[in-house]
Amino acid sequence: MRTDLARLVDPRSIVFIGASDRQDSIAQRALENLIEHSAFDGALYLVNPKRKDVFGRPCLADVSEVPEAPDLAIVTTPAETVLTALTACAARGVAFAIVFTAGFSEVGDAGKDIEADIKALADRTGMRIYGPNCPGLTNVNKRLGFAFSPAFKTDLRGGSTGLATQGGALGRTVMQSMDRGLGIGLWCSAGNEVDLEISDFIAHMADAPDIDVIAAVLEGVRDGPKFVAAALHAARQAKPIVALKIGKSSIGMAATQSHTAAISGSAEVNAAVFRQLGIVEVDDLDELVDVASLFAEKRPRGDEKIGIFSMSGGSAALSADMIGLAELGLAQFSPETLAKLRDLLPSYAAIANPLDTSGNILATPHLLYPALMAVVQDTDVSITLFPIPLDYGKFIEIACEAIIRVRAETGAMIVPVWMSDRTGAGYAKLVTAGIVPIRSLGNAAKAIKRWRAHGQRLKRFDPTWSPLMQDAANLASAGAVRTLTEVEAKSKLAARGLAVPVGRLCGDATAAAAALSDIGGKAVAKIVCAQITHKSDIGGVKLGLVAPNEAIRAFEDIMTSAKAHFPCAHIEGVLIERMAPSGGIEAFVGIHRDPVFGPMMTFGLGGVYVELFRDVSRRMLPVTAAEAAAMIRETRCFALLNGLRGQGASDIAALEALLVALSDFVCDPAEAIEEIELNPIWVGKAGQGVLALDAVLTQRSGR
Amino acid sequence: MRTDLARLVDPRSIVFIGASDRQDSIAQRALENLIEHSAFDGALYLVNPKRKDVFGRPCLADVSEVPEAPDLAIVTTPAETVLTALTACAARGVAFAIVFTAGFSEVGDAGKDIEADIKALADRTGMRIYGPNCPGLTNVNKRLGFAFSPAFKTDLRGGSTGLATQGGALGRTVMQSMDRGLGIGLWCSAGNEVDLEISDFIAHMADAPDIDVIAAVLEGVRDGPKFVAAALHAARQAKPIVALKIGKSSIGMAATQSHTAAISGSAEVNAAVFRQLGIVEVDDLDELVDVASLFAEKRPRGDEKIGIFSMSGGSAALSADMIGLAELGLAQFSPETLAKLRDLLPSYAAIANPLDTSGNILATPHLLYPALMAVVQDTDVSITLFPIPLDYGKFIEIACEAIIRVRAETGAMIVPVWMSDRTGAGYAKLVTAGIVPIRSLGNAAKAIKRWRAHGQRLKRFDPTWSPLMQDAANLASAGAVRTLTEVEAKSKLAARGLAVPVGRLCGDATAAAAALSDIGGKAVAKIVCAQITHKSDIGGVKLGLVAPNEAIRAFEDIMTSAKAHFPCAHIEGVLIERMAPSGGIEAFVGIHRDPVFGPMMTFGLGGVYVELFRDVSRRMLPVTAAEAAAMIRETRCFALLNGLRGQGASDIAALEALLVALSDFVCDPAEAIEEIELNPIWVGKAGQGVLALDAVLTQRSGR
Repeated sequence: MRTDLARLVDPRSIVFIGASDRQDSIAQRALENLIEHSAFDGALYLVNPKRKDVFGRPCLADVSEVPEAPDLAIVTTPAETVLTALTACAARGVAFAIVFTAGFSEVGDAGKDIEADIKALADRTGMRIYGPNCPGLTNVNKRLGFAFSPAFKTDLRGGSTGLATQGGALGRTVMQSMDRGLGIGLWCSAGNEVDLEISDFIAHMADAPDIDVIAAVLEGVRDGPKFVAAALHAARQAKPIVALKIGKSSIGMAATQSHTAAISGSAEVNAAVFRQLGIVEVDDLDELVDVASLFAEKRPRGDEKIGIFSMSGGSAALSADMIGLAELGLAQFSPETLAKLRDLLPSYAAIANPLDTSGNILATPHLLYPALMAVVQDTDVSITLFPIPLDYGKFIEIACEAIIRVRAETGAMIVPVWMSDRTGAGYAKLVTAGIVPIRSLGNAAKAIKRWRAHGQRLKRFDPTWSPLMQDAANLASAGAVRTLTEVEAKSKLAARGLAVPVGRLCGDATAAAAALSDIGGKAVAKIVCAQITHKSDIGGVKLGLVAPNEAIRAFEDIMTSAKAHFPCAHIEGVLIERMAPSGGIEAFVGIHRDPVFGPMMTFGLGGVYVELFRDVSRRMLPVTAAEAAAMIRETRCFALLNGLRGQGASDIAALEALLVALSDFVCDPAEAIEEIELNPIWVGKAGQGVLALDAVLTQRSGR
Repeated sequence: MRTDLARLVDPRSIVFIGASDRQDSIAQRALENLIEHSAFDGALYLVNPKRKDVFGRPCLADVSEVPEAPDLAIVTTPAETVLTALTACAARGVAFAIVFTAGFSEVGDAGKDIEADIKALADRTGMRIYGPNCPGLTNVNKRLGFAFSPAFKTDLRGGSTGLATQGGALGRTVMQSMDRGLGIGLWCSAGNEVDLEISDFIAHMADAPDIDVIAAVLEGVRDGPKFVAAALHAARQAKPIVALKIGKSSIGMAATQSHTAAISGSAEVNAAVFRQLGIVEVDDLDELVDVASLFAEKRPRGDEKIGIFSMSGGSAALSADMIGLAELGLAQFSPETLAKLRDLLPSYAAIANPLDTSGNILATPHLLYPALMAVVQDTDVSITLFPIPLDYGKFIEIACEAIIRVRAETGAMIVPVWMSDRTGAGYAKLVTAGIVPIRSLGNAAKAIKRWRAHGQRLKRFDPTWSPLMQDAANLASAGAVRTLTEVEAKSKLAARGLAVPVGRLCGDATAAAAALSDIGGKAVAKIVCAQITHKSDIGGVKLGLVAPNEAIRAFEDIMTSAKAHFPCAHIEGVLIERMAPSGGIEAFVGIHRDPVFGPMMTFGLGGVYVELFRDVSRRMLPVTAAEAAAMIRETRCFALLNGLRGQGASDIAALEALLVALSDFVCDPAEAIEEIELNPIWVGKAGQGVLALDAVLTQRSGR
C-alpha cells in the first residue's frame, strides 16, 4: 500500500513549528527559503509561543490554534521537544511532518527511544513523518524548499530527474550537478527515516508526472519488501531507477552501518537484486549523474550503435577505444553519409566512423553543423559521441552551438564529452541548453553501456513477477531448523520431479551388495547421517564400486570410519547410488535467505571457478524460466556449458528446468524449506539431462 | 645512444623560417608566442625573402645569411618548400628544426615520400627534426613557446611533470589540467615523428633536472628498442612514467593506425611491457592527470595506508567503500590520535577511520585544521583522503585552507576529492596551492592504487636488466622457419636441463612394445611428424598403455590413422613416453615474437582458465628468477598452484626454474629459436617437479 505524498511535496498549507529569525539558525534559514525563495502561495502558519511575530508575520502560541488542518508541519524545535510538537501536530490533523532537528538515533540510545515513540505516533495517527536529522525536501519543479540549506536558492535547475537519497551531503553533491546541466525536479532525503523512507520517495516519483528518471543514493534498505515493491512499481511505470549503493566493501559496509541504522546487505546480493528489479546500478556519484542524464535524454532499446564525431585524431582513436572496450557497437556509416561528409569536409578529414574532422575544421567552423547533421542522420547511428578534448574559446563555442542546434532540430541523442579541466563558454552553452557534458571518455562509454544494457534487460521484464519475500516475511522468522539427511533431501527432490541418481539406503553390508547389483553400473557409497556434512573428509564416501564385494567392503570401511570420527552420531546407514556418467560438467545451485531480500538463488559451475573467479549469478525467488535461462547465460562459465572448443553443448534446457523446479520447491510454503544446496549437479550433454549428486536441505521446524 | 635535447628545449639562438605577421597565420601566432609571451632572450633571426621586416624586426632572405649556426630552426613554410628549407638549415649548421607545417604522410603517399627525404636528411646531416604536422614544443618552466597555439600564453603553470604526447589535441587536454593544479614543466609532441619521437622526449625528461614525473599519451611505438631504452633510462633515474596507451581495442587500434603510421601493438602485450618497464599504465586522460599528480606529490613505498577525513557520513562510507574495493589498506588510528580527536570534536563526530566530523563542523570551522593535523600525524596514516562532497562557499574554503596549511606544515600527503560539479573558491585555493583535487572518489581510489602498486613494483626493479629485443633485432628479420618434431624439440629442451618425460621414438610396433617395457608404468603413444600439429584430432595419441600388446596395437592404430589423414606426410614414427603421474595441475608457457617488442613469454594454467578468463601473464625476455616468480603469482589461478582448499602446494619452484630455463634457451642466439610453446606442462606437488608433456618449437632456417 503506497502513501500518496502529493500533499507532502506540494502542500496547500504549512505550519512551521519553532519559527525564528535568529540569524543562521535552522529555523531562520528554512523560513527564508520558504518565504523569500520559494513559490509557495498556500497558507503559512508560524508557531512560537515566545514570539509575537517572525519575518513580519504573526506567530501562534501552539499548533492547536491553527485554523485548519495543515497539509504539512515543519518542525525545527530542539530534539527533546520534538515528540511533543509532533503529537500536537497529529492532534491538529497534520498530514505530513518534516523534522529537521538532529540529535536522535545518530547520537545514542536516548535518541533511539524517542525515534521509536515518533514511529509509534506515526503508526497510531496516520500522520506521516519525514526525518528527523534530515536536510528537508526540495521540490525544484514547483520551486518549493522545505529545507534549511542556503544552497536551496542556488540549485534551481528543474527537470525530469527525481533524486532520492539517505545522506544529505551526497544528495547535495548530486544537486550541484545542476551546474553540469542535469535538471532535478524533486529531491527527497529523509535522514534517520523513522517513518517515510527512500522507498516511499521512489514510489512517489514513479507516479509523479513531472519525473521520468529516478536517481537514488542508498546506504542501506530498512524494509526489503517495501523497497522491492517501490522498485517494481517504478519499473511497471517505465521509470528507470539509477542507483548508487554505498557499503559494497566490508569496510564501506562497516562505515555505513556506523552511520545509519539500516541493514547494508552484501554487495553481491544487492547487485543481483538491483539487476532483477531493473535498477541500473552505478559505482560512483559522477556516474549516477552521467547515467541519469542519458535516461533523461532518451530511453534505450538495447541495440543502439554509436557514431563518433571528433575534431582530432587522438580523440577519435581514444573514443573508438573506449567504445570498443565497453563492447558497444560502432555504427557503419552508409555510403550516403560518407558521400555527404566527403562533399562537406576538406581533404584533411578522415571520413569514417570515428569521423575525424581534424582540428583544421576550427578554421571553418560553419562546417561543424552540416557535418554533425550528416552523422546523426545516418540510419545506423543512434547515439553520437562528441569528444571535446580542450576548451578553445569561440571555436569550441561554435562546436557546442552545432550540438545544441542539431539536437534541437532532429531530436538526435548527442553525448558531448568535455575532456578538459578547463570549462569555458562552450561548456556553459551546453549546460544552459540542458545537455549534460560527460567529463571523460571512459565515463561516457561506461554510462552508455549501462544505459544500453538496461534496454536489453527491459526486453525480459515481466510486469507480473514479484518476489516471494513479500509473502514469506512471516515464515522467515520461524524458529529452529533441522538438516535433513541426503536420502531424505533427495527423496523430497525426486518427489518434485528433480532428477537424482538411482540409489538405495542400506542398513548392512549384504543390503549394500544387493543394492549394487540391482542398480547396475558403477556405484558410489556414502555415509547417511544428518550430523555429518563433510562426508569425504572422514572417509564417508567410496567411488567406483562395481563388484558386490566392493560394496560390502565399502560399507564396512565407511561405518568403521564414521563411528571412529563421530562415536555419538546417529548413523542411518550407507547410500548406494549409481554414479553419474563420465564426461559431464559439474554445476551447483544454492538457495539461502538474505535478511533483507528473502530467499536468493545462487548458480555457478562447481569448484575453482567459483572460488577463484566468483563466477556466479543470483536471483530472488521465484526464478522464472526466462530468468533461469538468463542466470545460466550471464556466468562467464556459460561458454563451457555451451560447448567450448567444439565439445558439444551441455543439457542447458534440463539445467534451466532444474533451477525453476528448485525455485518452485522452495516457494511452496508447505515444504517449509529454509535453505538448500545442490552441489555438485552433474550436467550431461544435450538430451542427457542433469542429476543432483548431493543435496543439503534444512527445513523449518514444526513440519 | 641518446640525443641531448638541451639546445632544442632551451636554445640560445633561433632562426624562424617563413616569418609573417598575417593575422591568424601559423607563423604570426608562433612569432607572437615567441616574441610577446616567451622569456626568450637569445638571438632570433627571421627569414622571409618577400619581407623586409616582420614584427618590427629585420628579415633575412635566406637561412644562409644567419650570422651564426642557430640552435633551433622553426619552419612554418608550405609543405612543398619544407625539404628545401630544412636542407638549407642543415647546411647552415642548425642543430634542431621544428616543423609545424602539415600536409605530409597524414594526407597521402606524396607526403610520405617527402617525409622519407626529410628523415634521410636528418640521418645524413645530424640535424634533428621535430615534426612535421605538430603543435610544437612548450618549455613552461623556462616560459619558452615554440608553438603556434594561442593557448600557449594561458597554459603557464610550470611544475615537475613532463608531458610527452603524439597527438596535439590530447596533449592540450592534459595541458589544460593546469586549471586543476597540475604543474607541467615541458610538453613535447612531435606529430608525424619523422625523426625525433616520443621516446627521445621521455629520455630527455629522464635526465632533465626540473622534471620528476613523465606523463605520456601514446598512440603507437615506432621503434620498440628505442622506447624500451628510454623507459628503462627513466626507471634507472627513478623518474616514474605514467602512460595512456591509445589503441587498446580492435576498433581503437584501427582508428589509431589510420591516424598515425606507428604500429599499435596488442593491448595485452603493451600492458605487459609497460608493467615490466615500470611504466604506470592508466586508462583515460583524467586518470593520467590524477596519477601524475600523486607522483609529483610523493614517491610511493607500496605499503601506504589511508586515513579518511570526511565531513559527512555518506562521504565517509563511500570513501571507505572505494578504498576497500580498491584493496587499499585503511590505517588504524592510534589511541593517541583517537584521544586527540575526541578532545577536539564535539559528540556528533564519529571518531574512527573513516573520520566523520559530520557537517556540523562547518559551524566551527576552526576545528578543521587541528583535527586534520591529528589525522595526518597518526603514524599509521601515509595518505589522507579528504572528500569534499559539495561546494559550500566560505565553509569549504576554510576546509581547503586547512588542507593547504597542514600539507605545508607537515609535508603530509593529502588527497582532496572535489566530488561536486560546482567548483568554487575552495577549489581555486587548492589549485593555486598546486594541490590537484581529484574529481571523484572512484578516480581517487584508482589513482592511489596505481601509485601505490608502483611502489611495490619498484622493490623488484632490477636496474641491470634489459630485454633481448635490442640485441636480437637483426635475428627477428630472418627468413624461413621450420617446425621441429616433438622428439627433436624435447631433445633440445632436455639438453638445456628442462624436464621432459622419459620416452623413445619407435619405428615399428616391436620397438614400441620394447620401449614400453623399458620405460615402465603407464605410457602414452604419440605420432611423430612435423607436419601434424593437432595430433589428437587425427587419432595420433593413445593414452594409458600398460601391456606390451597395448603398445603394439597403439602403434598400428596410430600409423594407420595418420596415413589415412596425411598420406603424403613424412612420419618419423611413434613416441612411446611415460605418462605424467596423476594429480598434477596443467600449465602452459609460450614464447612468441611481438613485432614491436621482440620475444615475449606468456604463462598460464591450461585449458579453460585461459580461454574463459584470459588469465595469463606476460614478459619480455629474458625472464629473471624474480620476474618468473612474479609471473606465476600474478595470475588469478596462482591460488590453484598454491594449494586451494588444503590441497597442498604445487612445485612452484620447479615451475619458476622452468620459465627461467626456457627464457635462457630462447635468448641463446645459437639456438635460433623463433617460437616455442610447452602445452601442457605437468606441475606436480612440491618436490615432484614439472614435466613439459608437449612442445612445439620453430627454428629459424640456416641452423
